[in-house]
Amino acid sequence: MKEYQPITKEIIEKLRDIVGPSYIKTDTDVLVQYQTDYESDPKRFHMPEAAVIPADAEEIAAVLKLANTYGFPVTVRSGGTSLADGAIPVCGGLVLSMERLNTILELNEDGMYMVVEAGVRTVDLQRRAREAGLLYAGDPSSSESCLIGGNLATNAGGLKAVRYGVTRNQVYAVEMVTPTGDIVELGACLKKCSTGYSLEQLVIGSEGTLGIITKATLKLSPLPPYKFDVLAIYTEPDTALEMVPRLLKAGIEPTSVEYMDNSYVRGCADYCGYTNMPHYEDGMYVIITVESFREEELDTRMETVCQVCEASGAAEVLEADERVWNMRRNCQTSVEQISKVSLTDDIVVPVHNIATTIEHIMEVGKNYPFQVKINAHIGDGNLHIVLCKMDMSDEEWDKNVEAFHQDVYAYTYAAGGRLAGEHGIGNKKLAYMEKFTPAGELNMMKTIKRAMDPNTILNPGKLIEA
Amino acid sequence: MKEYQPITKEIIEKLRDIVGPSYIKTDTDVLVQYQTDYESDPKRFHMPEAAVIPADAEEIAAVLKLANTYGFPVTVRSGGTSLADGAIPVCGGLVLSMERLNTILELNEDGMYMVVEAGVRTVDLQRRAREAGLLYAGDPSSSESCLIGGNLATNAGGLKAVRYGVTRNQVYAVEMVTPTGDIVELGACLKKCSTGYSLEQLVIGSEGTLGIITKATLKLSPLPPYKFDVLAIYTEPDTALEMVPRLLKAGIEPTSVEYMDNSYVRGCADYCGYTNMPHYEDGMYVIITVESFREEELDTRMETVCQVCEASGAAEVLEADERVWNMRRNCQTSVEQISKVSLTDDIVVPVHNIATTIEHIMEVGKNYPFQVKINAHIGDGNLHIVLCKMDMSDEEWDKNVEAFHQDVYAYTYAAGGRLAGEHGIGNKKLAYMEKFTPAGELNMMKTIKRAMDPNTILNPGKLIEA
Repeated sequence: MKEYQPITKEIIEKLRDIVGPSYIKTDTDVLVQYQTDYESDPKRFHMPEAAVIPADAEEIAAVLKLANTYGFPVTVRSGGTSLADGAIPVCGGLVLSMERLNTILELNEDGMYMVVEAGVRTVDLQRRAREAGLLYAGDPSSSESCLIGGNLATNAGGLKAVRYGVTRNQVYAVEMVTPTGDIVELGACLKKCSTGYSLEQLVIGSEGTLGIITKATLKLSPLPPYKFDVLAIYTEPDTALEMVPRLLKAGIEPTSVEYMDNSYVRGCADYCGYTNMPHYEDGMYVIITVESFREEELDTRMETVCQVCEASGAAEVLEADERVWNMRRNCQTSVEQISKVSLTDDIVVPVHNIATTIEHIMEVGKNYPFQVKINAHIGDGNLHIVLCKMDMSDEEWDKNVEAFHQDVYAYTYAAGGRLAGEHGIGNKKLAYMEKFTPAGELNMMKTIKRAMDPNTILNPGKLIEA
Repeated sequence: MKEYQPITKEIIEKLRDIVGPSYIKTDTDVLVQYQTDYESDPKRFHMPEAAVIPADAEEIAAVLKLANTYGFPVTVRSGGTSLADGAIPVCGGLVLSMERLNTILELNEDGMYMVVEAGVRTVDLQRRAREAGLLYAGDPSSSESCLIGGNLATNAGGLKAVRYGVTRNQVYAVEMVTPTGDIVELGACLKKCSTGYSLEQLVIGSEGTLGIITKATLKLSPLPPYKFDVLAIYTEPDTALEMVPRLLKAGIEPTSVEYMDNSYVRGCADYCGYTNMPHYEDGMYVIITVESFREEELDTRMETVCQVCEASGAAEVLEADERVWNMRRNCQTSVEQISKVSLTDDIVVPVHNIATTIEHIMEVGKNYPFQVKINAHIGDGNLHIVLCKMDMSDEEWDKNVEAFHQDVYAYTYAAGGRLAGEHGIGNKKLAYMEKFTPAGELNMMKTIKRAMDPNTILNPGKLIEA
């Protein structure tokens, strides 16, 4: 890895001039909060040398110009909810926290769009849209804690992606500070555009390696007033997963199709204290949500959904009640009850290959000393594989995780999939990114990164080795 | 403009070795077909020095490597239906025609995707999808003549964009030859992905300046079996255009919303020989198409559409018959009847600004000696402004067109719009692109272009001045 300029007193002075004395942090007991994100393994933590909390794009631009002048690295921190070590300053240097850019600037009801600063909490802008009778359709599970800028940087997915797409589909335009410190506006509030390169699409999902997004113009959709949730319980995984294309072909555009394997069903029911959950012992749960603008269409649609589920071999089909959603929401917490250290992985495969992929992973998992659990956004082929360290030694854990990943990722690529469906690569999957990405694609990424960030000061050690 | 190496006998020999003697053209009477596309003004034609018709990506890669070695320019030709001079070899050099890459390689019904070579006609792959009960939703008006590679290069829009989005929303992955002659695979057949830069999105709409797309994996959708078309006739333009957001908020997701101004209504009715078209004298026609998976939902939806149209001031609301669609399809041809040379322009504005934009353009048009006609995909803010040269002198025409464009484009940008909604920039709007694009965005485009194509051999004189 490249050698960087340490942050000297001189640099600190200049940073203080830019952001003001209250917004630069150098005390170890303050910096400790920036050493990790949702990473739970202390071996992967890394302390920054300093942190700044700038007020706006102009200050961020000045910080990045300084970083280029001196050659110190800058790691951007959004909500700090990364599961891929995305906010950890792995090369040391400066952490730049986006928390003060937290204003919702405009909501245009006629134009159905919203302009927000990058540090607005996702849940706050979702709420603001709802108050206007509109929907911001990006909905990552971490919406209570994450900031919209992080959603954009990772192209976050979430619970409504089957119907509405991922974060990149919710964005009209962004304001960004380039790695060399220029403030640029990319994209426009347009339904179609063939006017030059789609730079906003390039930047979304680039995990802060091509620039720091400071503002975004987001699409809003009409808010469907009606919905229903169906719980389909399967005892055979392969049949469960054939249901998605059948639903689509029947003209049902579900908002989400969520899957919990049986270990989750049991773990979450236990955690929530629910006794008598159906098929507690052998059931896999699939929750299907369908929204509608017309009350009178709910019945016929629910009937279609139930028919499709039954035809695809569901053991039981019920209306999903609040308990089921509560279980789904507590997947992560239920894991924490079992194991202090766990690893939540995120792969994605073509939807038509999801059944065989789950089967393969569960089969492979049997060869390992940890418990393998899967919950999935099966409507879009996105699997979260959770490994629980329990009381394994560090060494045993690392060795086994590595071997498991080599197997699972190789299988994933062979099935037409990719390393990350919604969490990003961060630092955690950097070596795998280098290994599994086709050479031509990887070269093209590096060509663009080097052209945009010639001194490699922005988010080094993330997404690609520049 | 950069000075390029002319195509010498030595280069011709090497090109012949790559593509074979039948697929290199140097005779003037053959090359003449490559001097223009849908451009009708002979002053803008430009002859290439040679043309090749390669068989596959490997041959294209070899041609581009040769172009870099010698420094001659290569202009890619797809269907040749560009209205922005996109296929005209404005710097001379070599034309590379994609016509032989014309195989539909795979249609996967379960996975709902299709793999095609770039030279497949759009209408052919649309038909193939329909035969499998599926829909390829890209639908440019030129689908009978254009090739899918050109649709990708320009991010073509078309008639179904309100519901299904533009070409970039129909693409999972592309195979591309980079300007330096590497064959790369970008993207994957996935509903979501956060694994590195979205290079396929960068390349789509880049008008062949970042690489030559040779293959694409396209999304297919379930084919809705039912549809209806409503014709709403307005006599006041501002009310006509308020109808779109109202439709969306009523939960109607129209497939298309097409607009013809009164000059088109009269021109097309005359051309088609239809007498007694309603409001022939003063009507603007808006055609709304709604698709459905359920026959029983058609009536309530049509009722909603009619109510919205009436509430927004329609003078008459009818079921649209085949005559209306035939008129819409013959917009371009009806213009050719009036004027041998005409200019079809393409701008896009935010949907909520379309009414004021149309009003402004019609008002401005009164100051000019040509007839200004507008047809529009108003559901997505995309206007086609057609100017008819009639019997004006070249000089008068050029001067007036230039002045009109300066005014209209400045207004468009002030309204949050862009130069091109679906036709691209090509060579025709290159100077306007330089003038109207914000400096930061333009610089970033140039940085990427220069990094990808260091010798500027690929499609020079298109989209940006590299």
